Amino acid sequence: MTSTAHSLLAERIARLGSETAFSVSAEANALAATGRKIYPFHLGDLNIKTPQNIIDAAFRAANAGKTGYCSYYGIPQLREALAEDVGRSHQIPLTIDNVAIQPGGKPSISKFVLSLMNPGDEVLYPNPGYPIYESQIEFHGGKARPYGFVEGPRNFEIDFDSITQQLNSRTRLLIYNNLHNPPSAESSLEEMEAIAQLAIRHDLIVLADEAYFDIRYSGTSTSIASLPEMAQRTVILYTFSKKFAMTGWRLGATIGPKEIVDCVAKLNVNDESCTNHFIQYGALEGLQGDPAGPRSIIDTLRPRRDRIVELLNQIEGIRCYRPEVTFYVFPNVTGLMQRKGFSQYEAFRRKVLHDTGVSFCTRLHFGRELPGETEKYVRFAYSGIDLDQIEEGINRLAEWAR
Amino acid sequence: MTSTAHSLLAERIARLGSETAFSVSAEANALAATGRKIYPFHLGDLNIKTPQNIIDAAFRAANAGKTGYCSYYGIPQLREALAEDVGRSHQIPLTIDNVAIQPGGKPSISKFVLSLMNPGDEVLYPNPGYPIYESQIEFHGGKARPYGFVEGPRNFEIDFDSITQQLNSRTRLLIYNNLHNPPSAESSLEEMEAIAQLAIRHDLIVLADEAYFDIRYSGTSTSIASLPEMAQRTVILYTFSKKFAMTGWRLGATIGPKEIVDCVAKLNVNDESCTNHFIQYGALEGLQGDPAGPRSIIDTLRPRRDRIVELLNQIEGIRCYRPEVTFYVFPNVTGLMQRKGFSQYEAFRRKVLHDTGVSFCTRLHFGRELPGETEKYVRFAYSGIDLDQIEEGINRLAEWAR
Repeated sequence: MTSTAHSLLAERIARLGSETAFSVSAEANALAATGRKIYPFHLGDLNIKTPQNIIDAAFRAANAGKTGYCSYYGIPQLREALAEDVGRSHQIPLTIDNVAIQPGGKPSISKFVLSLMNPGDEVLYPNPGYPIYESQIEFHGGKARPYGFVEGPRNFEIDFDSITQQLNSRTRLLIYNNLHNPPSAESSLEEMEAIAQLAIRHDLIVLADEAYFDIRYSGTSTSIASLPEMAQRTVILYTFSKKFAMTGWRLGATIGPKEIVDCVAKLNVNDESCTNHFIQYGALEGLQGDPAGPRSIIDTLRPRRDRIVELLNQIEGIRCYRPEVTFYVFPNVTGLMQRKGFSQYEAFRRKVLHDTGVSFCTRLHFGRELPGETEKYVRFAYSGIDLDQIEEGINRLAEWAR
Repeated sequence: MTSTAHSLLAERIARLGSETAFSVSAEANALAATGRKIYPFHLGDLNIKTPQNIIDAAFRAANAGKTGYCSYYGIPQLREALAEDVGRSHQIPLTIDNVAIQPGGKPSISKFVLSLMNPGDEVLYPNPGYPIYESQIEFHGGKARPYGFVEGPRNFEIDFDSITQQLNSRTRLLIYNNLHNPPSAESSLEEMEAIAQLAIRHDLIVLADEAYFDIRYSGTSTSIASLPEMAQRTVILYTFSKKFAMTGWRLGATIGPKEIVDCVAKLNVNDESCTNHFIQYGALEGLQGDPAGPRSIIDTLRPRRDRIVELLNQIEGIRCYRPEVTFYVFPNVTGLMQRKGFSQYEAFRRKVLHDTGVSFCTRLHFGRELPGETEKYVRFAYSGIDLDQIEEGINRLAEWAR
């Protein structure tokens, strides 16, 4: 059955973006279906199963009858455990009142925007960045103002000028994805403090997207919510997806000031009643049970990171930082593209995919190029591909590049 | 941590409604915590566990590694199974393209509104009815126009005048919850045809909330989508919640014209990425496996329905239809309230709760009273309370009423 009407959809739909990375998946899958070997570096997903103790805990709960509705804030035990866990790692006082469970990390983005942004308000967000930021801001009538990154001595740094140049009296919110996807940058304490100062001075509320907070190979993560005077103006996007390899469970939380969390919970009532009941017991086991699972996830990812960085840097015309965080690399491929005669991202990406089976996203899957942007970047995810396939795939890319 | 700012929240939040029935739950729970015996007739939930074969199938899928993302449309197997199942029961041609899996039944409401309603558009919706309709319409800038019900010879009927009086050139959508919650009314074929004619004549798109489509004790349900020319202008809210006792799983689907389903799926990408992956295999088992589970749910509910109707009708000042559908009754308690000296719903509800432990929702939990409305109604759900407790509770109410 199809619809007969013509301009059926509401006007706002024209402002709704998407994750264009899905079309890369579709293209890779279509190619794989013809029998071609594909090296899936485009996936922001893990090819690592959720730790068994988490699965078992969820199904113990289902078998014990936790199959009816729970509170639209989530189960109290999980909210308490998160308040304690995040309170400790962030060194901020959190209680159950600061936590609303969500069906994933992503719902915190739309609910943050709906709760705090009036139509016409301006919102600063990272670009290249998670494309849903811009989409939700524009969809709900705000003005999305992108800030960028520059190459620093050891990793990308936030282009601070691109923030300050766009600040004005209508700027209301700032989205900050430290342990950034896709550049895999991490703010220095100085950079984070500068952003916090700016948020305080201009009375901005900050969405701290901390999806990758625990995905790191050395050192310790710091949250902007931990800086002085920031907890009361920061909403944390928390997700179980990456740390516990639970992407397909759709389980996360909005953590922040009670007034905002209460508003987000009221959106929960309206949008989905509550998050799946019994899977929350799985997450509780993740937080309180054997930590071997998340440790093993990092131990699986680390050698992949080491190898992909090493191999990419051996290719002429590619240079790549060695990030301590996330499971992405974001190499500069300007030289390679020039050498092979490509000026357009999509033509380059498609040619590499079709010639080598190596599938990746480009900078364009994370937002439009900013004014004056000349360097070219692509994103390789190493979360959904095994070490031997990384080697094989990047070696094929290297051959192609020669 | 609490927020310091004053009028922190966006203006639209003032238009966001809620399910005030949750406050009845909170009140009942608080009373239960003091040791008082409570008879929970307020819950729209089932105290029946999900059939074991469904739980087992979901768990098998999780153990088989279905713990990563799936398509934002849902897994193809479940979409196909739903297209076949609903296509057959509705006698309309459906394919996988007409189905987008959702984290519950409720998400279809907001996504229908966001996809099809422009600010200022008028939307007809039932009142008394599910309070989220009005909330989502107003929240996203529409005008919610309630239509009511009148007492007919054997059950409630839609007050057709209240629809036609409000129709105008700005009316764009109509929400229709046949097998209505709370009145437990079911449209006659004539009534449904009249609504369909009106939708066609005024070019309205219909949301058919079919949450209770399979909750019936005799006869067969008919969908407005099955009437001539209606499939192309009807979006079906499908949910696994009631039929399979899966309320806490949060699993449903939006079923309708491809153009709308594609738009809803794009909202899925933006709002929650996808619905939990492995639980979709549980639902697949529900649709294709042993039908003993859903049958046993109906067999459990039927004697509860028979008994509560019988007992309520023995109370002076209460009259109650015997609905063949849903798991609610919506008795007229005008006489009882008058006899006991109550003119206000909340005072009456609280007094009964505190005197007898019998907890129920009133008409006000399903919308504001309509102009000229004089009769008083309350809603008893018998889905969350066992037969012996129904008898004990309603007998206590009868004693109180004497």
